[in-house]
Amino acid sequence: MKDYQTGDLFHNFILIKEASKGTTSNGSPFLTLILRDRTGEIDAKLWDVTKEDEELFVAEQIVWIQGEVIQFRGKSQLKINSIRPAQVTDQVQIADFIERSPVERETLQEMLTEAVHEIENIKLQRIVQAFTTKYDHDLFTYPAAAKNHHNYASGLAHHVVSMLALARQLVMLYPEINKDLLYAGVILHDLGKIRELSGVVTTTYTVEGKLLGHIPMMVEEIGHVARELQIEGEEVTVLQHLVLSHHGKAEWGSPTPPLVREAELLHLIDLIDAKMNMLNRALENVNPGEFTERLFAMDNRAFYKPLFEKEIIKESV
Amino acid sequence: MKDYQTGDLFHNFILIKEASKGTTSNGSPFLTLILRDRTGEIDAKLWDVTKEDEELFVAEQIVWIQGEVIQFRGKSQLKINSIRPAQVTDQVQIADFIERSPVERETLQEMLTEAVHEIENIKLQRIVQAFTTKYDHDLFTYPAAAKNHHNYASGLAHHVVSMLALARQLVMLYPEINKDLLYAGVILHDLGKIRELSGVVTTTYTVEGKLLGHIPMMVEEIGHVARELQIEGEEVTVLQHLVLSHHGKAEWGSPTPPLVREAELLHLIDLIDAKMNMLNRALENVNPGEFTERLFAMDNRAFYKPLFEKEIIKESV
Amino acid sequence: MKDYQTGDLFHNFILIKEASKGTTSNGSPFLTLILRDRTGEIDAKLWDVTKEDEELFVAEQIVWIQGEVIQFRGKSQLKINSIRPAQVTDQVQIADFIERSPVERETLQEMLTEAVHEIENIKLQRIVQAFTTKYDHDLFTYPAAAKNHHNYASGLAHHVVSMLALARQLVMLYPEINKDLLYAGVILHDLGKIRELSGVVTTTYTVEGKLLGHIPMMVEEIGHVARELQIEGEEVTVLQHLVLSHHGKAEWGSPTPPLVREAELLHLIDLIDAKMNMLNRALENVNPGEFTERLFAMDNRAFYKPLFEKEIIKESV
Amino acid sequence: MKDYQTGDLFHNFILIKEASKGTTSNGSPFLTLILRDRTGEIDAKLWDVTKEDEELFVAEQIVWIQGEVIQFRGKSQLKINSIRPAQVTDQVQIADFIERSPVERETLQEMLTEAVHEIENIKLQRIVQAFTTKYDHDLFTYPAAAKNHHNYASGLAHHVVSMLALARQLVMLYPEINKDLLYAGVILHDLGKIRELSGVVTTTYTVEGKLLGHIPMMVEEIGHVARELQIEGEEVTVLQHLVLSHHGKAEWGSPTPPLVREAELLHLIDLIDAKMNMLNRALENVNPGEFTERLFAMDNRAFYKPLFEKEIIKESV
Amino acid sequence: MKDYQTGDLFHNFILIKEASKGTTSNGSPFLTLILRDRTGEIDAKLWDVTKEDEELFVAEQIVWIQGEVIQFRGKSQLKINSIRPAQVTDQVQIADFIERSPVERETLQEMLTEAVHEIENIKLQRIVQAFTTKYDHDLFTYPAAAKNHHNYASGLAHHVVSMLALARQLVMLYPEINKDLLYAGVILHDLGKIRELSGVVTTTYTVEGKLLGHIPMMVEEIGHVARELQIEGEEVTVLQHLVLSHHGKAEWGSPTPPLVREAELLHLIDLIDAKMNMLNRALENVNPGEFTERLFAMDNRAFYKPLFEKEIIKESV
Amino acid sequence: MKDYQTGDLFHNFILIKEASKGTTSNGSPFLTLILRDRTGEIDAKLWDVTKEDEELFVAEQIVWIQGEVIQFRGKSQLKINSIRPAQVTDQVQIADFIERSPVERETLQEMLTEAVHEIENIKLQRIVQAFTTKYDHDLFTYPAAAKNHHNYASGLAHHVVSMLALARQLVMLYPEINKDLLYAGVILHDLGKIRELSGVVTTTYTVEGKLLGHIPMMVEEIGHVARELQIEGEEVTVLQHLVLSHHGKAEWGSPTPPLVREAELLHLIDLIDAKMNMLNRALENVNPGEFTERLFAMDNRAFYKPLFEKEIIKESV
Repeated sequence: MKDYQTGDLFHNFILIKEASKGTTSNGSPFLTLILRDRTGEIDAKLWDVTKEDEELFVAEQIVWIQGEVIQFRGKSQLKINSIRPAQVTDQVQIADFIERSPVERETLQEMLTEAVHEIENIKLQRIVQAFTTKYDHDLFTYPAAAKNHHNYASGLAHHVVSMLALARQLVMLYPEINKDLLYAGVILHDLGKIRELSGVVTTTYTVEGKLLGHIPMMVEEIGHVARELQIEGEEVTVLQHLVLSHHGKAEWGSPTPPLVREAELLHLIDLIDAKMNMLNRALENVNPGEFTERLFAMDNRAFYKPLFEKEIIKESV
Repeated sequence: MKDYQTGDLFHNFILIKEASKGTTSNGSPFLTLILRDRTGEIDAKLWDVTKEDEELFVAEQIVWIQGEVIQFRGKSQLKINSIRPAQVTDQVQIADFIERSPVERETLQEMLTEAVHEIENIKLQRIVQAFTTKYDHDLFTYPAAAKNHHNYASGLAHHVVSMLALARQLVMLYPEINKDLLYAGVILHDLGKIRELSGVVTTTYTVEGKLLGHIPMMVEEIGHVARELQIEGEEVTVLQHLVLSHHGKAEWGSPTPPLVREAELLHLIDLIDAKMNMLNRALENVNPGEFTERLFAMDNRAFYKPLFEKEIIKESV
Repeated sequence: MKDYQTGDLFHNFILIKEASKGTTSNGSPFLTLILRDRTGEIDAKLWDVTKEDEELFVAEQIVWIQGEVIQFRGKSQLKINSIRPAQVTDQVQIADFIERSPVERETLQEMLTEAVHEIENIKLQRIVQAFTTKYDHDLFTYPAAAKNHHNYASGLAHHVVSMLALARQLVMLYPEINKDLLYAGVILHDLGKIRELSGVVTTTYTVEGKLLGHIPMMVEEIGHVARELQIEGEEVTVLQHLVLSHHGKAEWGSPTPPLVREAELLHLIDLIDAKMNMLNRALENVNPGEFTERLFAMDNRAFYKPLFEKEIIKESV
Repeated sequence: MKDYQTGDLFHNFILIKEASKGTTSNGSPFLTLILRDRTGEIDAKLWDVTKEDEELFVAEQIVWIQGEVIQFRGKSQLKINSIRPAQVTDQVQIADFIERSPVERETLQEMLTEAVHEIENIKLQRIVQAFTTKYDHDLFTYPAAAKNHHNYASGLAHHVVSMLALARQLVMLYPEINKDLLYAGVILHDLGKIRELSGVVTTTYTVEGKLLGHIPMMVEEIGHVARELQIEGEEVTVLQHLVLSHHGKAEWGSPTPPLVREAELLHLIDLIDAKMNMLNRALENVNPGEFTERLFAMDNRAFYKPLFEKEIIKESV
Repeated sequence: MKDYQTGDLFHNFILIKEASKGTTSNGSPFLTLILRDRTGEIDAKLWDVTKEDEELFVAEQIVWIQGEVIQFRGKSQLKINSIRPAQVTDQVQIADFIERSPVERETLQEMLTEAVHEIENIKLQRIVQAFTTKYDHDLFTYPAAAKNHHNYASGLAHHVVSMLALARQLVMLYPEINKDLLYAGVILHDLGKIRELSGVVTTTYTVEGKLLGHIPMMVEEIGHVARELQIEGEEVTVLQHLVLSHHGKAEWGSPTPPLVREAELLHLIDLIDAKMNMLNRALENVNPGEFTERLFAMDNRAFYKPLFEKEIIKESV
Repeated sequence: MKDYQTGDLFHNFILIKEASKGTTSNGSPFLTLILRDRTGEIDAKLWDVTKEDEELFVAEQIVWIQGEVIQFRGKSQLKINSIRPAQVTDQVQIADFIERSPVERETLQEMLTEAVHEIENIKLQRIVQAFTTKYDHDLFTYPAAAKNHHNYASGLAHHVVSMLALARQLVMLYPEINKDLLYAGVILHDLGKIRELSGVVTTTYTVEGKLLGHIPMMVEEIGHVARELQIEGEEVTVLQHLVLSHHGKAEWGSPTPPLVREAELLHLIDLIDAKMNMLNRALENVNPGEFTERLFAMDNRAFYKPLFEKEIIKESV
């Protein structure tokens, strides 16, 4: 949707992300739709809907729309001239309409597998392997968060793989680091999101996610997996500690702060990768000399893109 | 020790709570002992100790001492004239030297059992029962905390039983409360302390306790017990939530705040019982018209005992 | 209003809670009314109003309306076909249109009187009695707050009586408590609200209420009443302390925190009763498996009603 | 004491500020005395004391001492050779041994009286007059605080008079200010200290002071005085508001923040005068180019005295 | 605009403060204008605009409008019947349409010059003089802030001159103050605003202002000016410290808190003058017995104007 | 000193780090010395000192001592048998007695030079070069902080070089980063410490350092250097912004938070390198299974060294 201008005609498939019912002042029912394709979202109104319409046009339904992009109260809106649900024969699928990780899924899988193999401590490796096997599918489908950073398909795996690259460099710069522990922590730290979040299309929190949160759920699951693999010893406790403490502070959701070197590092790597992801995506949308919109998860700051960035890029060509 | 005055002679058994080595300025080794019986503690110095002395007189050892109570830098000290370790034939045991719950262990057991039986929801009851069976011994031995409140033998069970009494009354006053859930939460909320704390004599934190904390450990253990009992359903998640949130706020160690009515209530009951325990024990030691010492866990406040308390008590005779 | 659906006809008496003037873009004046009966509120517009209309249709006026419930911007609205002020002969009164305590006024009065009689300390009893006599009417009319908790007619008395029930149980569980002091504190703690708030229909803050607040006003009034009754002694000071400190912390409006056992307890009882009132009223409106709306006075949390509540209730039938 | 050096002989009258009992390791009782004259304090030990000594040499007793100034653990100490309590015939009085306001009491009285006469609003003037009459003695004796600022005899009056001078200038600079209200607020704002503090020699908090604090006590007293004078109207409420809010924030002891222009100003004037008093007294003790010790009541800052201050002073000679 | 009522006709020059484009639901473009004269602002809509209109009617353009004041959604709006840009021959200038300091520019200049001459320390005087010369124009044009206080033409100079008057009085009351240093600090403390803010008409932050802020910029500039004047010594550092610390706390933008007496005082004087300016302007708009709107920069408080203010003013006539 | 045990004899040169005078209870003067060599510190007492001794044995003086290591109050102390100041002919120098960066000075210089050459933006390169030339000596001598991290000779350069290594890796992982800007920020960010701290032996804060702090001083100095090099443009402002914001938050000393991507990154890199330095040095001193002492600059946490670290190290041999 990114490239559509006011006045452009639209006839294409698109995904309904949210649908909500309303009634006009004269009593006729209508639907407010939020539509999205891989590049962005647009609002639309469907007037004078029937009961069947209300059942057909719901969240996660792909539809074919013929219409026009108009302006309404300073925002783009898609004026619908005709609409129908996609059919099997249309050969479209939800995955085609949601944003995806910039790195291919296969690449992410390879890089993750490689990192698992680098873990020499056999206890840690077996636990990690059990998790990558268990969440084989979801790990490469889920976003890393409902919003803010890596909030796109495969975002979770993308986040993990970026952090592993960072971890690899840090291990070389600071040889005191226990590489096995750090790698294991990076790979597992956010896997609890798979149970905390509802999925990749309309990402909301599950009841379990709201009542427990991904951190305690993952601490529990590590304990469970270790029991099943009959692994005992401090590796299990310390790995649980890494997951438990990776938000860094009680106020941020870690009841215990990092008390092991690699736990502190895991927290810092997580911070860097999440922040770089947010910053890069926000700065992509502004020109040199401009500020981004305020970024809520970056303490509500608006970031500046210096004028001299541009010239440097030119020079580097 | 509470009743000994300066100048009193002492010849009795007593428990070494802590022992630490020192060296005088002229190079001779000595031991600083913290001694305790059921009513209180006193410091002592053992001069010119041999290697054997250092091995004999260690924490958790009961000793027979003959000496005198003196004043040193404004504090009472036990001047040791002679000392020897207790023998099997002395028929003394550690439990005789540590402070105990004011309510008898048998009473506590009965009251707890009764409460478990009152739980009608069969899933909750089975989980709770599994825990009371599993921790049959420690539940009635452990303190509820290393310091501050219920920090005495059977303190954990005493705290739970007092809270159950409060819960019973609240259920009658506010009939909307889910009694089963609240009872289950009260009984389990602090059981993680058994793994977090080292024991009842010299209560310190275990490594596991420091790295994970009693709350996440207990959340995990509830999940584990439920799996073993093949119990599924929201009862497990909500019970975990009660334990997870019972400190009330992220800053106080609950990454998720109470989001279920009984969770909020569990937090409040815990607060009342802990505070009443601290207050009553502190006020016991002062006369009407005086302030207690500052209580760290009560925001460092010193509490006042009104003058008119006394008279009322008299009148009520 | 709770049971009216879109499309329902309305012909009934109703109370104007608020009325505000507006002008349409073509210059004609209209009134926006907020109407309420005992069960809820609804908005209405009165178009093309005359000067007399503006004077007739004001806050706290009961009116007879014939109209229809419609939807406007996603909210219910009452479309007025005809309207007239209620007459004396209509025999309707404001009290019929405002939410009331679930416990009858007479019951509240009895329970309060009983508690006063239980106070054995003669100084405390005389002071409390002077206040219940002085505020005989308002105590059983006023809400306990402008919003959040017990914000309905007789809410103040309802709150006090619930707290007294709680206090009675606590006195039995913790016999160290000075019952007389705690009861006196419970009964008087919020009486300052009668001067702080404007009344029960459209509850706002008085100028005096804003500049001083109910806590300092009540501390002053206790001093004044004690002087008039020629009562001296620490009872007066300590009772003032209970009122002064009952919000628990400086940040919450108590310049002195609780420094007497019963003051701490008063604060905790107040917290429990206010929270249970808020929680129960919010959870009443949602089904098992749903979250309530965010409750501002509960740190903006949305509370969950577990699925298994329902079944338990069925079982208990 | 300020001018005594190590090795100096001492034979003079001096006041006992505090006396506490101790016992040496060989069991003989001694007294630790804190002695003071107008310029400072010094510690002393009195060895091998009898029961009579303990009763004679107590706080607020003037004594005649013959001794020598020595060094003990890096601090000056007065080695007592002989000591006796002062007699009536010695014609010494406590007031001679405590620090005093740099401005004479008579001047303070005149300046205060003048300000009272400047208040034109008759209600405010009568209330203020009632208080200056009532506290005629204590107002010119009490310190303004137990420590930190104006903590010397007549400190309270000195603080008030300095603030009045500031208020006078502000009224000229900002003619919108209600002078009468501001003056009344300045004069009364800290009078509650007279009941909150024990007196001028060994200034501690009274029980009433701890349980209520000077602010709520003064709010009450203004109400009481107004009632006695049969003064009604907003002047009373607003004057109470000024006293209530003069600490500026709930966290600092004002449950209501300033909501009237003169209340805000009163808070700021109080701040300036207290801070200037603390700063000037601390900077007096250091040379240009040095930092003062850390000032607890100034957020623990150490203040710097610039080098160029000196030269300017020289130039101005 | 302050005196216009609904229904009044308007034909006059007025300044466009902001202009933003919109599109109606049927696709026709319009402009939303914020118009202002010296006394206030009003919104207006310009319908069916052409490309030329969009270029003509932009921020900082003076226009002649013939229209009518109407009500729209409870706010006044100017209905435009005809509009044209002002011509050179119209002899109107932007300065005529923006709010101005209540004190004349010439008076401000005189008072500032006088204060500079009072500075006796030659180093400080030369630095200050260099700045008043350098910013001769902007100092008497710029506002002191984008909003909140002294946000009008010459507001910066007005703020400085008011603070100097306050400083003069304080120097007399507390003779320990280094007058030269305080005066220099007052005059320079906010001059960095000239680079931080864009100007006086539509005051926004410059890029440099956002990235550095007026405080660090001014610290740098003092260093630069001192170097150019070849002035060395602690005067430069201490003057920089005054500017650096004048916000009082790290959280408020001063990385170093005041550590010199005059720095502390500068912070307090700044506070008083800013607050009095905000308060007086807000209270001007309300009647006795009313509260102002909430003032964001005063911790969101609404201030009360007492009823008895009025009578006093009458009496003083 | 690290390898000396109680009872060991000592005859060697050592540096006096601090010397302070005292007086024994019988009036004889003594010196308390803190002595240090490259590996650690030890206390010593020098009894019965003469005036000459006091002048000879001062901070930063190297002395030859013959003595013995004893225990005093649980700490090691050097009992001095004889002492004399080092002579020129002893050929010892201060640098031999202070802790040094683990990386050689020459290596640090090479790595820094290399990084400077990698900066392609000519403006940034010239500014950075001007600083490395200007502080050629101090940059390779100064510690990075008075305590906490890199507090040893060449600590500043060591910190910068470690951060550059980190920056190099991040630039490869996130190609959007402006390498030139980040490198320039890393090299300059802490150079202000050279003026803020007194030097490398007894590192204290200079007056200028206390009144301004290294951040504002460096912002000023970049402006000054750019002016001298006649460099203009946004590079200067943005580079100043990086230095200004590198503490991340106002509360931590950055009045402006990072608002440019590389500023945010600089803050994070600084954090990682400082924390890794603190953690590695603290963990070096404990065995697997132990906790470090509490680290003040790491929120007072004690860190745990897992048991399984050891085995891994063995395996890797």
